[in-house]
Amino acid sequence: MTSQIGTASCSIAATLAVIGDRWTVLVLRDIFRGVHRFSELQDDLGIARNLLSARLAKLVAAGVLEKVPYQARPVRYEYRLTDKGRDLSPSLIALMGWGDRWMSNGQPPTVLIHDQCGTPLEQRVECPTCDQDINPRAIRSRPGPGRRTNP
Amino acid sequence: MTSQIGTASCSIAATLAVIGDRWTVLVLRDIFRGVHRFSELQDDLGIARNLLSARLAKLVAAGVLEKVPYQARPVRYEYRLTDKGRDLSPSLIALMGWGDRWMSNGQPPTVLIHDQCGTPLEQRVECPTCDQDINPRAIRSRPGPGRRTNP
Repeated sequence: MTSQIGTASCSIAATLAVIGDRWTVLVLRDIFRGVHRFSELQDDLGIARNLLSARLAKLVAAGVLEKVPYQARPVRYEYRLTDKGRDLSPSLIALMGWGDRWMSNGQPPTVLIHDQCGTPLEQRVECPTCDQDINPRAIRSRPGPGRRTNP
Repeated sequence: MTSQIGTASCSIAATLAVIGDRWTVLVLRDIFRGVHRFSELQDDLGIARNLLSARLAKLVAAGVLEKVPYQARPVRYEYRLTDKGRDLSPSLIALMGWGDRWMSNGQPPTVLIHDQCGTPLEQRVECPTCDQDINPRAIRSRPGPGRRTNP
């Protein structure tokens, strides 16, 4: 069994190849929350310029962020999420949810809400057939179409 | 705004302090999938002994894993998820989902299914008031009870 689940054929490993670094996740968190410019990101994160620059370049190269000019002379850019980047929202929400439940003494620093009604949001894993929430013990995995067979 | 969202008061940063390292996430992935013993983890991940040992020790210290003896002479242990560890399931599912959608050419290597009926599972963010799925553009954040005010 073990060799079948190595990193060569795993979407978790594939995702971590793009965002598997703490600074990268925190950069994305800030951009989701509306911090789009280099100097603002640097101020907020307290990260060295060269490290921030490298993370942003990697995220742009991966198609997660795009550089959009916001000023003409001199040209200055801000960083915006692409569709691929915005789709990291469930990952950040899940990481945040665990920190809220286990690391905040019941006092979450931030609450995510539905813009239309202000209700705190809930992230769930559901079975569309049974129409019910599924807890981790009821989850199994099976090989998908992209599973590489072992040589 | 920016200074309010620094790492000092953020559940994403708090979670990354525990699992914000690629090897750690891959160790957890394996344990979720039923690989519980040191030598099996080492074989599957191709990780150096000292690195694996350090990751496991950190996860035990954080209360995410527990060591359970499976053999008496000599005593040998395997690593099991605690409730705190099992609650990382939504994070791993979210990371996997993004890799499936963006890094697998539409061919996911693994499919998570409901054990009772075999249906592929879906992870959603929902508004309990509006009883609807929420997309990332409709999410706002507000300060929670644990938000530290700036000095």
